[in-house]
Amino acid sequence: MKFKADRATLMKSLAHVQNVVEKRNTIPILANVLLAVRDGKLTIAATDLEIALVEEVAAEASRDGAITVPAATLYEIVRRQPDNAVIELDHPGGDAQLALRAGRYATSLVALSVDEFPKLDAGKLSHNFVVSAQELRGLIDRTRFAISTEETRYYLNGIYLHAAEGEGGPCLRAVATDGHRLARVEEPLPTGAAGMPGIIIPRKTVTELRKLLDEASGEVEVSLSETRIQFTIGNMRLTSKLIDGTFPDYDRVIPRGNDKILRVDKKDFNDAVGRVSAISAEKHRPVKLSLAKDLLVISAASAEQGSASEELGGDLVDYQSGPLEIGFQARYLSDVTDQIKGKVEFLFADGAAPTLVRDQDDASAIYVLMPMRV
Amino acid sequence: MKFKADRATLMKSLAHVQNVVEKRNTIPILANVLLAVRDGKLTIAATDLEIALVEEVAAEASRDGAITVPAATLYEIVRRQPDNAVIELDHPGGDAQLALRAGRYATSLVALSVDEFPKLDAGKLSHNFVVSAQELRGLIDRTRFAISTEETRYYLNGIYLHAAEGEGGPCLRAVATDGHRLARVEEPLPTGAAGMPGIIIPRKTVTELRKLLDEASGEVEVSLSETRIQFTIGNMRLTSKLIDGTFPDYDRVIPRGNDKILRVDKKDFNDAVGRVSAISAEKHRPVKLSLAKDLLVISAASAEQGSASEELGGDLVDYQSGPLEIGFQARYLSDVTDQIKGKVEFLFADGAAPTLVRDQDDASAIYVLMPMRV
Repeated sequence: MKFKADRATLMKSLAHVQNVVEKRNTIPILANVLLAVRDGKLTIAATDLEIALVEEVAAEASRDGAITVPAATLYEIVRRQPDNAVIELDHPGGDAQLALRAGRYATSLVALSVDEFPKLDAGKLSHNFVVSAQELRGLIDRTRFAISTEETRYYLNGIYLHAAEGEGGPCLRAVATDGHRLARVEEPLPTGAAGMPGIIIPRKTVTELRKLLDEASGEVEVSLSETRIQFTIGNMRLTSKLIDGTFPDYDRVIPRGNDKILRVDKKDFNDAVGRVSAISAEKHRPVKLSLAKDLLVISAASAEQGSASEELGGDLVDYQSGPLEIGFQARYLSDVTDQIKGKVEFLFADGAAPTLVRDQDDASAIYVLMPMRV
Repeated sequence: MKFKADRATLMKSLAHVQNVVEKRNTIPILANVLLAVRDGKLTIAATDLEIALVEEVAAEASRDGAITVPAATLYEIVRRQPDNAVIELDHPGGDAQLALRAGRYATSLVALSVDEFPKLDAGKLSHNFVVSAQELRGLIDRTRFAISTEETRYYLNGIYLHAAEGEGGPCLRAVATDGHRLARVEEPLPTGAAGMPGIIIPRKTVTELRKLLDEASGEVEVSLSETRIQFTIGNMRLTSKLIDGTFPDYDRVIPRGNDKILRVDKKDFNDAVGRVSAISAEKHRPVKLSLAKDLLVISAASAEQGSASEELGGDLVDYQSGPLEIGFQARYLSDVTDQIKGKVEFLFADGAAPTLVRDQDDASAIYVLMPMRV
């Protein structure tokens, strides 16, 4: 295998695949990236056995072949070359080391044969559809914060993606919950997604996909079966196993009849919650919302540190129902309101019942928060 | 105690004193800042028993008094107020909590009496002098990297500051060493520093002082005795205990007769060392410098990862002596060359002897590096 590539091109691709490589590895080959030239085309790939990322990279290839070398080392070497460097990689075959040259710099990297490199077979993918990178970002960003980190509830350790019947018609729905809060986001159902199985995309896949989407602007091809999902973004292809479990029936957690409505500007609310909760360093301590007509008082107390409160008056809040007191974990409130652009709408039933939260101007996402006793 | 102050003013000062507070504290009062109004002037102070920082803060004071409250909490509350907020703090005395008000936000902070707050008495300070903030930054920046972290060699855990006879006359000299490398920096001896005792300023004091100097532009008053040092920077006063130990006779470590001189651009050299040492993730592996007339080859090898080398030829290096091979820890090389602005000058004796390093255009600092076997 032999090719030349620009430092910038190579570095960008190595940065992508490097993310997939687990930092602490007991299996040496999993710390490696696969460099392969076939029919004059270079691909770079990495896998952690759950996720595989393959990227086609612009290069001037002069000999076919494939080899694997340590991902972190290769990335570090390429990164440290001068901006305009052209890097030549040459592997003659067999047990030889990989030779890398750039100007007067030369290195020989211990390589492992491509035969040992695990193949993540996507198998037959039954459903294919296209979504825009922007829609996919929206589905992820507005749900991922609610993904559970409890390993025993492995079926909650990801985003549940499925086709559903929304209020506005058939939709592609992403749901995540950790039992304390739930996020449900919808986009119009893409052609080809009808009848797709409900799948749970693992947290790490969500994280890696989201990084790749950062730079993406066009469309993303999604292919999936009951056990695998594949995202094609430009010249990158991310394949992942899915969580083998049953996502709970989230629909019965979503309250329907909540009729006490609070409307408040997202920033005013978030800032006040931040100030009030600063009184306590404890992560799980609640803040209390006390409501009366056109008045919201946010308060918190800690036996060790003291107490704090802030009033948001009639010019800042709109609340027309009867008095109500309800407590939430501060972090859970801001996780939700961070996703909202303008006015936040809270729909309460009472101080002990699940509360519905949504963006006043965007019906595509709803959030459910469980209250805490205060 | 009662005063009003701008959020920005208060936050800046709390950020300073907060740094001094140890994050993990078993003695509650040490987690607190002292707020004191005396004769209508506000001071804010913190201590960790080794270092004390006292800052005079612009405020509209309306009642004298003093109280202590948790530093991190107060800082967080102040930080989260709106930019233009005016913050009022009120402590009626006794066991009461501290009331803080800003607009419609109010908090009560559990306070501890000022009686429990430790006083760091500077005692009688025998020597006083003035240095510019810029000179003091230079003394610190070019030596601190060589401070030892070995706790058993406590007398090396700081910067040794003393009056000495330099080549250009009497000087104020800062020295640090960890046994593997040594840094010695000089500035002209300020009036009042003659006859000062040689003192060892602890690492944490160096760190905190350096942070305060970041924003300083004028002069710094330094007062010291054999056991204490005090820095007055504008309205801030940092007092610190000194390390009670004897700094070794560093002078005999500095080689005098090294006559093989290599001159190389700092950036070319640093970048090449970075690229070559990227082959190995091991921190202590050496890079080898192989010298011949007007040729420097930097190389490294690792049994697990492979090998790397880079040539710097005659247009980039100036070396007129005989062939030489010598190894250094890559990190130690870049720690030194990072302090050098233009051309680095290495003065070698042979491959096993201490090497002298200096800035070709700046005689005020010299560095000594011990070689590693390669």
